[in-house]
Amino acid sequence: MDYDQLALTLHEKYKGKITTALRDTRELGRDELSAYYSPGVAAVSRAIADNPASLPRYTWTNNLVAVISDGSAILGLGDLGPKAAMPVMEGKALLFKHFAGVDSVPIVLDVHTPDEIVAAVKAIAPSFGAINLEDIAAPKCFEIEERLKAELSIPVFHDDQHGTAIVVLAGLINAMKVVHKKLSGCKVVTVGAGAAGTAIIKLLRLYGVREIIAVDSRGIISDARTDLNSEKKALLEFVDRDKTGTMEDAIAGADIFIGVSKGGLLTQAHIQSMAANPIVFALANPIPEIMPDQAKHAGVAVIATGRSDFPNQVNNALAFPGIFRGALDNGVKKITDQHKIAAAEALAALVDNPTADQVIPSPFDERVVSAVSAVIK
Amino acid sequence: MDYDQLALTLHEKYKGKITTALRDTRELGRDELSAYYSPGVAAVSRAIADNPASLPRYTWTNNLVAVISDGSAILGLGDLGPKAAMPVMEGKALLFKHFAGVDSVPIVLDVHTPDEIVAAVKAIAPSFGAINLEDIAAPKCFEIEERLKAELSIPVFHDDQHGTAIVVLAGLINAMKVVHKKLSGCKVVTVGAGAAGTAIIKLLRLYGVREIIAVDSRGIISDARTDLNSEKKALLEFVDRDKTGTMEDAIAGADIFIGVSKGGLLTQAHIQSMAANPIVFALANPIPEIMPDQAKHAGVAVIATGRSDFPNQVNNALAFPGIFRGALDNGVKKITDQHKIAAAEALAALVDNPTADQVIPSPFDERVVSAVSAVIK
Repeated sequence: MDYDQLALTLHEKYKGKITTALRDTRELGRDELSAYYSPGVAAVSRAIADNPASLPRYTWTNNLVAVISDGSAILGLGDLGPKAAMPVMEGKALLFKHFAGVDSVPIVLDVHTPDEIVAAVKAIAPSFGAINLEDIAAPKCFEIEERLKAELSIPVFHDDQHGTAIVVLAGLINAMKVVHKKLSGCKVVTVGAGAAGTAIIKLLRLYGVREIIAVDSRGIISDARTDLNSEKKALLEFVDRDKTGTMEDAIAGADIFIGVSKGGLLTQAHIQSMAANPIVFALANPIPEIMPDQAKHAGVAVIATGRSDFPNQVNNALAFPGIFRGALDNGVKKITDQHKIAAAEALAALVDNPTADQVIPSPFDERVVSAVSAVIK
Repeated sequence: MDYDQLALTLHEKYKGKITTALRDTRELGRDELSAYYSPGVAAVSRAIADNPASLPRYTWTNNLVAVISDGSAILGLGDLGPKAAMPVMEGKALLFKHFAGVDSVPIVLDVHTPDEIVAAVKAIAPSFGAINLEDIAAPKCFEIEERLKAELSIPVFHDDQHGTAIVVLAGLINAMKVVHKKLSGCKVVTVGAGAAGTAIIKLLRLYGVREIIAVDSRGIISDARTDLNSEKKALLEFVDRDKTGTMEDAIAGADIFIGVSKGGLLTQAHIQSMAANPIVFALANPIPEIMPDQAKHAGVAVIATGRSDFPNQVNNALAFPGIFRGALDNGVKKITDQHKIAAAEALAALVDNPTADQVIPSPFDERVVSAVSAVIK
């Protein structure tokens, strides 16, 4: 299917994807308008001034997420700036509403340094109940998220990092049932150390995986490397930091390969060098690191991709709607590591009998949002 | 009617006033989601990256206004900060939708200096089709609006200034027909030199009024004053700068009194000192400078207030919905002085036979939005 043409046609036909509507759908007369605006609204302003914690009681912030990007890492397209990011952020707002009934507003930022982005988000933060950061390039995304989490009292969640990591962990939990291994004992190789790769490594480590080898475009990330930026240096504490060499060296004997890198990078020979019953999560989009049929031919036990046209899609829409639904409904102020693990376990538990072709639930499974939101408390 | 209690009840019952909805209201399946989000949306991002002017063709920015405040001058309540401003801004969003079908998003800012506010608004500006500034205290509101108008390529409109000025001019145009005078020859006194007062003075001058005396809490604003801030000094070029004295000195012999000051400030004796057939616009809220029955008793020819429970309500909802509807629909990048005058004339023309009790149309007159939007081109 030519989604490009369908996308251009639908966006133009409907003039975008979201709109606003009134919550009170009755016919509004003079009295209602006088209560919703001046003079009556002054009483609501005074109530909030007296007790700022009552903001979500009286305003749409109780159901409202800002979807914020500077456009520096739009999908796989790179840095195309804020305007080009708008349709993606508006698409995320559509998904929020469609899957979880969450109101959200796309905000694209015409500023680019971490200081400027943090300042802009902090400036508008009282307008929202939670903040979803999106498509902000690594490594600045790490600093921006950390600072905002520390300085704001509403949930801040960079979906490219944590949404992906949660769904990957869910898939691996079920893949273990297919191959009869324990995740903690597996040797995991990750290729790609951007936003998603870094978050996957941290979450797997937290979940108890002891041996993780991280690979970037220059090989294994280790103490021996002299070219690491501060974010990659910080990653050393989560990986097998003594291991050196090439991607091939890392893959040899691995139980699990996780690619968040680029299409076509993994060969059948690579897979054949892995341990018995290898698991491959080839998440590059739109072209995976290896196509599922090739991977199966080379003997993978489980293959997952980011694509909807193959089984086992690692799709962030499994995580973020329920994460924010739960945070808003349950008054959660920070999304913690424990929340992420609980969300992954809740997703994994939705697959009754995991098989090679189903380790991850479908985003169209109607139980997904409530299963995830229930653990964000 | 106790609007305070109704306001608190309705805001709590409906959990705020606005929500989001999808423009495409069909059942959305896998294909539609793949076109509205990844992978299809990438084609839309590329189209906008190639031609940034196509942003409104593909995104909701074509119908979208940001309603922005720092909460420094909320209604008549003063500086209660951003959270307390939220219900007012969300109320404005409700009015935008109700009267003109315009989507809008309330943005309250947790920054307070002109530099910070300008930086925050510029940072988020690519997310919107136009910007409505609201309830920002004078004098900083003037600098903020001027800088944003100069630095952004979308319409920026401070409604407390210009919305009020447009409706006042509309009312005066029709009041002239009641008293058979010419506005250009009238002596006008304004009391209150904040956002609204300043904008009224400038618009009346632009419209050809030759004699305007501006009064603030310390008397007539003139060259003789040594206590004027830079904004009030700038006002001198629009007023009778040689005239000195008290408010009483200013009012004596005036044809038109315009109060944007505080309740009860105007006495019957003041009105009796004015010229024949005096016109009084007593716009302080919720208590006007003088109550209409008292003013009539003192011999006014026309009295207008800001209240909906008396005739001749100066209500910004007559102006801003049509102003933004027109700007968005007609691709207008700046709201000019000519637009403001044209909007005032269009509003005035909606009253077929102006009388003392009807110089201003009702905001419930269904012709209002289209009459105003038609001249914003």
